[in-house]
Amino acid sequence: MNFREKVRDVIRTKNSLLCVGLDTVIEKMPNAIRSAENPLFAFNKAIINATADYAASFKVNLAFYEAYGLQGWRALQQTFDYLPKNVIKIADAKRGDIGNTASMYARGVWQELGADAVTVNPYMGFDSAEPFLQNEEKGVFFLCLTSNPGSKDFQHFSDGSVRLYEKVAATVNSWNSRGNCGLVVGATHPDELARVRNIAPELPFLIPGIGAQGGDLVESVKNGTNSEGSLALFNSSRAIIYASQGSDFVEASRKAAQLTRDQLNEAR
Amino acid sequence: MNFREKVRDVIRTKNSLLCVGLDTVIEKMPNAIRSAENPLFAFNKAIINATADYAASFKVNLAFYEAYGLQGWRALQQTFDYLPKNVIKIADAKRGDIGNTASMYARGVWQELGADAVTVNPYMGFDSAEPFLQNEEKGVFFLCLTSNPGSKDFQHFSDGSVRLYEKVAATVNSWNSRGNCGLVVGATHPDELARVRNIAPELPFLIPGIGAQGGDLVESVKNGTNSEGSLALFNSSRAIIYASQGSDFVEASRKAAQLTRDQLNEAR
Repeated sequence: MNFREKVRDVIRTKNSLLCVGLDTVIEKMPNAIRSAENPLFAFNKAIINATADYAASFKVNLAFYEAYGLQGWRALQQTFDYLPKNVIKIADAKRGDIGNTASMYARGVWQELGADAVTVNPYMGFDSAEPFLQNEEKGVFFLCLTSNPGSKDFQHFSDGSVRLYEKVAATVNSWNSRGNCGLVVGATHPDELARVRNIAPELPFLIPGIGAQGGDLVESVKNGTNSEGSLALFNSSRAIIYASQGSDFVEASRKAAQLTRDQLNEAR
Repeated sequence: MNFREKVRDVIRTKNSLLCVGLDTVIEKMPNAIRSAENPLFAFNKAIINATADYAASFKVNLAFYEAYGLQGWRALQQTFDYLPKNVIKIADAKRGDIGNTASMYARGVWQELGADAVTVNPYMGFDSAEPFLQNEEKGVFFLCLTSNPGSKDFQHFSDGSVRLYEKVAATVNSWNSRGNCGLVVGATHPDELARVRNIAPELPFLIPGIGAQGGDLVESVKNGTNSEGSLALFNSSRAIIYASQGSDFVEASRKAAQLTRDQLNEAR
């Protein structure tokens, strides 16, 4: 089963478009768990247990683990090992380098971490992407249009008819011979999301930027899913994993995940 | 002393434009060292000892260490710790993510690794760059024009008057208020190198793509250095660290480093 079919299958089986983002920061944890021997993994384990019923996917942002060096890298591996089988496990790495280097990054995320998908920066072009695309079961979400203010700096650069992010969407669509390409498209601009969906009707989208900004959620689901209301994973990190910083954080994250899952489904 | 002055100073003191790239692969090591308990670090230590006299800089490509998970990350930290003080230590990470995530990556490369500089992908714009630029002594080489075939896919996208890589060069130049911005510009196209140098006359350049292709070396030095023949670091990885795969690999890498240093200086 190629990656696209796997995404469709998990969304159907779990009846969820929700991706829970494990952007875990020690300073934001409740006191009790902060003093655990291995706080990053202890916190993630609690959050995974609490939210797995409602999540189609978990996205683990490598930056938050690299920041703690060796100790962080160990917690990263433990987290990937602990994730349940019936979710899409995304290594949010935003890597991108020339061919022989990209092969090494691919080895890291597929073999060492056991991820199902990775985020990749398209700036260096096809030969930097290709080593990640060898196995049809493993997916790549290419950065297309991101949700941060700086997305204006280069992603909107235009040749008069198309903008860079639209060119990225069309180009990635042409790389999809194995059915395992996807795109990262920010939810902050629902109109642009619709434009990208139009360019790539059947690529899985990873959509960050929901969470706090509930207003755009309905529009984003309508514009970001494919014609059958699928093939999009909506990531929420902080609004779920730090739903409470008190001793009720497990129950609070569970409730936040359930609520977000339901809101996403209502908007389909 | 800001990063630009530090680069100028090291190039002058060491009389070298050479950057040695530690893209270390276990399979390419001589047999004797491959069976060491910690082959990645054992090999790097030998290469650093052999080449440090001739190198202004060492560039450590994180991909080659992440590929080996926890063991690799340990070797990465040991390598950074072992590098001598009087060189520019570059973490070739090609990271790039939104503000709070970029801060975590910055923590990783500055605090955990102790690097002097990092390579960053500009695709996500200013707020993804800014957390790396807080300390004037720590430098950022932004990907501008890379040396791989895929560089054509997006970096040459044009609005009719400038191409994306020229826009990146001009934009990064405008971010340089602390004197710590630099650019990665491939040596494969000396004319384009001249164009970028024209846009950013006083930014330090990190220039990959020399090594095997000696033909362009003279042109690349002329076009890539600034008006005083400085502010450019020319990276060679495989041609130096795998100069021999036999038991004479230490001496061979030393000779290759010396030769490359001399060729670069003759071309200034």
